[in-house]
Amino acid sequence: MKQVAIVMGSVSDWPTMQASATILNELQIPFSKHVISAHRMPAQLQDFGQQAVTRGIDIIIAGAGGAAHLPGMLAANTVRPVIGVPIESHALHGLDSLLSIVQMPAGVPVATMAIGVAGAKNAALQAASMLALQDDQLQQRLLDYRAAQTQKAIESEAQLD
Amino acid sequence: MKQVAIVMGSVSDWPTMQASATILNELQIPFSKHVISAHRMPAQLQDFGQQAVTRGIDIIIAGAGGAAHLPGMLAANTVRPVIGVPIESHALHGLDSLLSIVQMPAGVPVATMAIGVAGAKNAALQAASMLALQDDQLQQRLLDYRAAQTQKAIESEAQLD
Amino acid sequence: MKQVAIVMGSVSDWPTMQASATILNELQIPFSKHVISAHRMPAQLQDFGQQAVTRGIDIIIAGAGGAAHLPGMLAANTVRPVIGVPIESHALHGLDSLLSIVQMPAGVPVATMAIGVAGAKNAALQAASMLALQDDQLQQRLLDYRAAQTQKAIESEAQLD
Amino acid sequence: MKQVAIVMGSVSDWPTMQASATILNELQIPFSKHVISAHRMPAQLQDFGQQAVTRGIDIIIAGAGGAAHLPGMLAANTVRPVIGVPIESHALHGLDSLLSIVQMPAGVPVATMAIGVAGAKNAALQAASMLALQDDQLQQRLLDYRAAQTQKAIESEAQLD
Amino acid sequence: MKQVAIVMGSVSDWPTMQASATILNELQIPFSKHVISAHRMPAQLQDFGQQAVTRGIDIIIAGAGGAAHLPGMLAANTVRPVIGVPIESHALHGLDSLLSIVQMPAGVPVATMAIGVAGAKNAALQAASMLALQDDQLQQRLLDYRAAQTQKAIESEAQLD
Amino acid sequence: MKQVAIVMGSVSDWPTMQASATILNELQIPFSKHVISAHRMPAQLQDFGQQAVTRGIDIIIAGAGGAAHLPGMLAANTVRPVIGVPIESHALHGLDSLLSIVQMPAGVPVATMAIGVAGAKNAALQAASMLALQDDQLQQRLLDYRAAQTQKAIESEAQLD
Amino acid sequence: MKQVAIVMGSVSDWPTMQASATILNELQIPFSKHVISAHRMPAQLQDFGQQAVTRGIDIIIAGAGGAAHLPGMLAANTVRPVIGVPIESHALHGLDSLLSIVQMPAGVPVATMAIGVAGAKNAALQAASMLALQDDQLQQRLLDYRAAQTQKAIESEAQLD
Amino acid sequence: MKQVAIVMGSVSDWPTMQASATILNELQIPFSKHVISAHRMPAQLQDFGQQAVTRGIDIIIAGAGGAAHLPGMLAANTVRPVIGVPIESHALHGLDSLLSIVQMPAGVPVATMAIGVAGAKNAALQAASMLALQDDQLQQRLLDYRAAQTQKAIESEAQLD
Repeated sequence: MKQVAIVMGSVSDWPTMQASATILNELQIPFSKHVISAHRMPAQLQDFGQQAVTRGIDIIIAGAGGAAHLPGMLAANTVRPVIGVPIESHALHGLDSLLSIVQMPAGVPVATMAIGVAGAKNAALQAASMLALQDDQLQQRLLDYRAAQTQKAIESEAQLD
Repeated sequence: MKQVAIVMGSVSDWPTMQASATILNELQIPFSKHVISAHRMPAQLQDFGQQAVTRGIDIIIAGAGGAAHLPGMLAANTVRPVIGVPIESHALHGLDSLLSIVQMPAGVPVATMAIGVAGAKNAALQAASMLALQDDQLQQRLLDYRAAQTQKAIESEAQLD
Repeated sequence: MKQVAIVMGSVSDWPTMQASATILNELQIPFSKHVISAHRMPAQLQDFGQQAVTRGIDIIIAGAGGAAHLPGMLAANTVRPVIGVPIESHALHGLDSLLSIVQMPAGVPVATMAIGVAGAKNAALQAASMLALQDDQLQQRLLDYRAAQTQKAIESEAQLD
Repeated sequence: MKQVAIVMGSVSDWPTMQASATILNELQIPFSKHVISAHRMPAQLQDFGQQAVTRGIDIIIAGAGGAAHLPGMLAANTVRPVIGVPIESHALHGLDSLLSIVQMPAGVPVATMAIGVAGAKNAALQAASMLALQDDQLQQRLLDYRAAQTQKAIESEAQLD
Repeated sequence: MKQVAIVMGSVSDWPTMQASATILNELQIPFSKHVISAHRMPAQLQDFGQQAVTRGIDIIIAGAGGAAHLPGMLAANTVRPVIGVPIESHALHGLDSLLSIVQMPAGVPVATMAIGVAGAKNAALQAASMLALQDDQLQQRLLDYRAAQTQKAIESEAQLD
Repeated sequence: MKQVAIVMGSVSDWPTMQASATILNELQIPFSKHVISAHRMPAQLQDFGQQAVTRGIDIIIAGAGGAAHLPGMLAANTVRPVIGVPIESHALHGLDSLLSIVQMPAGVPVATMAIGVAGAKNAALQAASMLALQDDQLQQRLLDYRAAQTQKAIESEAQLD
Repeated sequence: MKQVAIVMGSVSDWPTMQASATILNELQIPFSKHVISAHRMPAQLQDFGQQAVTRGIDIIIAGAGGAAHLPGMLAANTVRPVIGVPIESHALHGLDSLLSIVQMPAGVPVATMAIGVAGAKNAALQAASMLALQDDQLQQRLLDYRAAQTQKAIESEAQLD
Repeated sequence: MKQVAIVMGSVSDWPTMQASATILNELQIPFSKHVISAHRMPAQLQDFGQQAVTRGIDIIIAGAGGAAHLPGMLAANTVRPVIGVPIESHALHGLDSLLSIVQMPAGVPVATMAIGVAGAKNAALQAASMLALQDDQLQQRLLDYRAAQTQKAIESEAQLD
């Protein structure tokens, strides 16, 4: 197992969740990727959560849409940090996904990101910021990443002309 | 175990969920009541769902609020009908509870009722309508219940004067 | 008449509601399909509800959009279980359909599913779970269906690579 | 029967709907008041709608809350104008009532007012404006009413000091 | 001037509002059509409202989108019935239009229809139902229209096969 | 007439709008206060807007609730800056007020503030920032006000202990 | 530096914000345009706000989407008027942008416009109305602009035929 | 400085945010508490974020309401993990706070919790789960905390009788 596990409720979430993978790669953070449907694979979900610590997973990034129970139920089964990504759903555009993930009751937190691709990117950066607490080299890569995106934003102004 | 199980995520949901109990009693449907927090008791949740059939539970009524994962995760662990009651939450008044329960992905249904006490009452009536499919006496009690509430509604007009 | 009646407010709802039909077929549950507009055919709606029991209909699946009154008014006219499917509407994307169906007052329940095709599929599965209470063969088919979808979800992970 | 019928889904709607009655009285428009629960009294609802013309009802004012089907189903059963008043509901504060009443499909209109007491008042004024099309005396009373409320609004400014 | 005036805030609302025109034509109700932007033509708006009675306009159908002030401000300037049609807006899909039209304060009603084309059609039918109060021939045409749409709905079921 | 006019749709808006008055006083900006109901006093509204320039009003602060047409219609009648304050409404808590004020069509802007008292306070500060463009003394008073509130915020931390 | 600064959080906001530029040009108001990401360039944001007065910027127009912090944080760093334009976001269509901009706490106002292009246009007109307080020629150009758009609206009616 | 910094936009947020403090105390995690208003103290906000690493702050918990810019702007100024708590606001009940915090653009994440006290509690638990990645004793305390709350939930069922 790798340091970070990217888990999603369906393969159809991959176009969103691969944004997490891209940034984890860029920051040289090892990760694995998994499909675990909270509702179709509840036993696997429970096992995955319960075994996260012993399998050496530090952080779980979980993306799900609609009545999105995957991040919260993973969090219920582990004390490892779980980062939730609300997938943009069809009818309600991810508002249902967001509320289903973020409105967790006291006792079991999910670190919720924005709806969709921006949220998937930020999930990877959030994971990096957690891991960087004890990893100076990752800290430096994260600082470099942030500096680069600042530089890119500054330079983008030239495109207005 | 009894025919219907009323399950709720917290004892604080009981003032809502006892409305289910009252109507089940009135219709003479045996039931048990349980507190199973999806996030604090995920193992118990899974066991409860998986053992529903063997323990003789026909129908599960599940009430939960906020990121309400209890009804959906019970449904993920059993083929018995699960009826979901969105508890009215503090900040968002149950809109989060409703969307977390009703927007289930294809494959695992939850029969969702209205937010709050009306939903808890209707959960019991919905359970009764299911059980009455094979129980003529219950069917008659249900018809009587409906006739009585119609009569009561008709008579209530006199209160306008 | 068949065991399950699929009723919709308009033929334009059929692309959504045929998802119910497909699953009922797969589970070998006999069904009929009907167009009953609550607002254009109120007399037919009332007759349909009132005659459901005598015509041998066990369960009604009703799909409607916007100010969706069909499921609730059918439920008002029968004690048979009514499963409501909110059709995705144009402007408000089904939020109006959902609230019009799920927020039933105490006394007359509608088992509400998710907005759109996922809801239509789940309506059929919900009906199956109700009928399976007294039908061991259907129960087995439903268990097989659920096992197959679990297996399919597990295998889908390979598509991530 | 009187010219206007005020119909409500429950006696609990009367504190809102009596605002219609007060203004109808003030404008000397004869009215009757009724409790017809769309879901508990569907047969009475259908009869009421179908007999409106023959019983001499010109306009129906219908108030209902939650999954508010009363105005729309009355409109489905008559060509007389139906004015809908969304009652403020508990959890969703009348947003459900509003959408359930206003989002009627093409073919059967409901003239929808604001949520709550303001809507109930305006329902009476809307009815008056319809009846005044052929009643010059009522037209004058309505003009007087409007002039008086304008005058009252103008004079209210003095309260700021 | 004709009996009904169709007023819209912008020519871009015409694709929606012409649905009103089509039905008024079908019911043989004379109408005129106008562009009056509440915000770009406030003086014309006031004149239009104030002169409605003297110009022989019986009913105003007003369509507008976004911060839709046209129906309410016309209603503020006349006692003739004003029917409001919320145009589907770009970002918020007409929810802003709906609330801006329907949530009128006590004293000045607007008979609000559904968002978009369905609302525009129903505005014409609502106008017809008002005018039919004193016009037996129109009443018959309206009954015929309703009967025809019922028949069409009944026959549409054949398309399911 | 004074430099700033505080206009509200009803005296019941005064508890909110007096927050504007308090800050204008504090910043020594002369102001008058008015009740102009957009729907009950449309003629006065039009006059007020049209005469703003000639009467020496520089800025209009307009508060209104529900289908809040006052700010937008004042803006339609003047080129003076109009600042809109959405009053918190009963059922929808000011969401209707906000959308009715902020979603103005292209061509006629309203500078919209937050819902309720915070918005009323900020309306005064917004007016001050506009007037300070040509008034160095007011600019200084505004800077002092901002510095004082910063200081107060800094010092408030001590209350945590 | 020019009199008005158009600032946006990303170059991707330019298709919306250029509507501000077009109208400022038309009204002969000098402006500059800038990309300042509140989250990627926080130091630049602070500098820009703090130096606005000394650099001769009278008014800042700031467009941002999602958790739109740019307008509010610019306003926190200057007493110059800040006009906020909520950019239409992907999942929530700008509702998040709107609430993030308009719901400012007491003490620091942002003059919020409508979501999207209409808001960007109105931001320029709002800026013009502020500057025109002390610029009679601009006042005249603004009056002419408004007169022209009124005329154009009046003439557009001919397109209905 | 302590390991965790609890930052809030106003002292009025303390009744919510002290729930974070209580749990950090219980888990023996050192923390400091601060009032930093994003809009009244932008310079202090920037300094706080920029100096977090050098001052030895590992994690920032930031609570704010309305147009809640504090968590996002702190995150813009540090690579340390920022956990955001949406404070329940008056009019919109924290929906504005939630969207202003969670909908961050790609590049700068905020780990968003539920609205209100539940979110404040979970912010502390989320911080603990991050710190426990490298602290076995904290990990054990966190496991004990979770076990205790599970036990408490199990035992609460007895209160139903």
